[in-house]
Amino acid sequence: VTSHATAVYALILAGGAGTRFWPASRADRPKQFLPLLGGDPLLRETVKRILPICGDAAGAGARWDRVMISTNRRLAERTRVILPELATANILIEPVPRGTAPCIGWAAAQLARRDPEAVLMVLPSDHHVADVERFRETVTRAVASAAAGVITTIGIPPTSPETGYGYLEIDAEMAAPVPGAFAGLRFVEKPDRARAEELLAGGRHLWNAGMFFFRACDILEAIRVHLPALGEGLDAIDRAAAAGAEEEAVERIFPTLPAVSIDCGVMERLAGFAVIPGDFGWRDLGTWSSAWELAPKDALGNSSPKGTIVIGAHDNEVVDLRTGGDRRIVALVGVHDLVVVETDDALLLVTREQAQDVRDVVACLKAQGDERFT
Amino acid sequence: VTSHATAVYALILAGGAGTRFWPASRADRPKQFLPLLGGDPLLRETVKRILPICGDAAGAGARWDRVMISTNRRLAERTRVILPELATANILIEPVPRGTAPCIGWAAAQLARRDPEAVLMVLPSDHHVADVERFRETVTRAVASAAAGVITTIGIPPTSPETGYGYLEIDAEMAAPVPGAFAGLRFVEKPDRARAEELLAGGRHLWNAGMFFFRACDILEAIRVHLPALGEGLDAIDRAAAAGAEEEAVERIFPTLPAVSIDCGVMERLAGFAVIPGDFGWRDLGTWSSAWELAPKDALGNSSPKGTIVIGAHDNEVVDLRTGGDRRIVALVGVHDLVVVETDDALLLVTREQAQDVRDVVACLKAQGDERFT
Repeated sequence: VTSHATAVYALILAGGAGTRFWPASRADRPKQFLPLLGGDPLLRETVKRILPICGDAAGAGARWDRVMISTNRRLAERTRVILPELATANILIEPVPRGTAPCIGWAAAQLARRDPEAVLMVLPSDHHVADVERFRETVTRAVASAAAGVITTIGIPPTSPETGYGYLEIDAEMAAPVPGAFAGLRFVEKPDRARAEELLAGGRHLWNAGMFFFRACDILEAIRVHLPALGEGLDAIDRAAAAGAEEEAVERIFPTLPAVSIDCGVMERLAGFAVIPGDFGWRDLGTWSSAWELAPKDALGNSSPKGTIVIGAHDNEVVDLRTGGDRRIVALVGVHDLVVVETDDALLLVTREQAQDVRDVVACLKAQGDERFT
Repeated sequence: VTSHATAVYALILAGGAGTRFWPASRADRPKQFLPLLGGDPLLRETVKRILPICGDAAGAGARWDRVMISTNRRLAERTRVILPELATANILIEPVPRGTAPCIGWAAAQLARRDPEAVLMVLPSDHHVADVERFRETVTRAVASAAAGVITTIGIPPTSPETGYGYLEIDAEMAAPVPGAFAGLRFVEKPDRARAEELLAGGRHLWNAGMFFFRACDILEAIRVHLPALGEGLDAIDRAAAAGAEEEAVERIFPTLPAVSIDCGVMERLAGFAVIPGDFGWRDLGTWSSAWELAPKDALGNSSPKGTIVIGAHDNEVVDLRTGGDRRIVALVGVHDLVVVETDDALLLVTREQAQDVRDVVACLKAQGDERFT
């Protein structure tokens, strides 16, 4: 079903704020720009992970010209710095934040001008994947499904009743276009705990990993049906682009587009879509608590600097992001389920349970006009 | 009963290690040398508090020549630095740690050579007193009691069932030598929680604040009765002193003296002693948790640097003892009953409940040979 000539592009969504990773993440350096799990910044890890698929659907990939990054003006320079291989034209700058639907639509529109049947892979920039080979296998099948004209997503078989993720309800396995794809029935919003346990027990729901695969023409058609105002805006941008004035048009038109996510605006309204289950050690790095889950830990569950003294303490994470070279001894006595993060200008103490409330710190700092720490 | 000519001396015990205040306290800078409550180091605060009483029993005081500090060789220089008004001869250096009985006995022996009826006030160097005027009133009465030949201590009316303090059981109020003195019946070791609650409810027990008052001749007689080996050692030091060789004798004899506290070795064995109740906001600064109790706190019980962001957090203490001038923003999210202490080379996280286990950190560091942090 897949043409070997199908062009495959990635669009990495990298405009998020990620305030829940304060004080590591800042307004001009959100979490996707941080090496939160060691190694490269999450955004660069994401690009490295998908790059071999960027090419054609047969696997001839690793084409940097087929990687697009969607971000905002504030983060553009930092994006160029951590992805020096990327052409400037491949960085799509939203003039104002309008959710994911307008920026995905814009990328699809650009692509459609060159090749309407090109497949676009839309990926978040801040997720963790443990098994990169299985990830690529799964993505390759999702691309094949998309290339056949089916809007496709990847669903993660849930291992716990997570309340921080959305879910995808699936029906029977589909006969076509690729083996192992299931008919998607609906998107389920982040559930409460009881509902999450039902979803986990029922065996018909997968985690929504926020990864979408479609041909440019297919998503544009869906946008025209479900978000006609966005469709019209994209048409206007197309006309301006034909006249060599795309940048100016985007500047003028973007603020008028409906502010909505692709999930709410399009995906949830589709009559049918495909879900490919993908079991490749996926985690959304949503909070310091999820970073702790992925971090290497001692036998008592502590992730802390080498040489840490531990007395009756368990399940803590101590993150030292100070730039000075002075080594300090860390001692944990009796504390548990804490995250401690220090940077040169901030010290955060948070329970793992309340890790999502770290965003309130940023709100507080802004409210009191202390923007230099945000 | 008190002669106006009675000479009054203070002996401040300042040789302790105080490992429970790590990382602020270090082997060469234990807690009595730290300004743990702001202001001066605790030892200097202690001297300033008692100095007006050092003179004669009538209140003509503030004589630095009547202040003696007992410490060890390692801490002698630091003692001189924080108490520059003190003559070197007034710093008594124990060559080896032998508990409080030998060093108190030695101080009493020195005093007795000049004036056997001089009153010696023995005080810890690391306690907190909120109401200094009432403290001095109480001490003045204790001195009067001691000057009359009664070994006297101060008992603190308990306000909670403390398991970290020893207790003094008292009998009826005594007719003499001073009003408001009670007959001491016995010393009670640190109780468990249930026993502490009994002691508190019974109304016959006071906290032992470790402050003792006696004439030099009286304590020396008690030592001769209850610790004859110490009495003989002190006699030998006296003989050497008469020959101008006290320092050398102390060096030789101290290691042979019984290693025992004045409480266990003498006070608990006395047939009778007086207890003056003293309600002057006393606390033993035993752990970071007690430092938190005394620290100024916000409405939610947090003691933390100015400007701290607090979100659902309560009853924490954050102590920043770094010497660099960089101000950092601190954020507390959801955490409670924690103490966090940072120095240039260490970071401690401890629950208030396990604050006493901080000494195990020091033990650990020593065990692994990391003495530079101890």
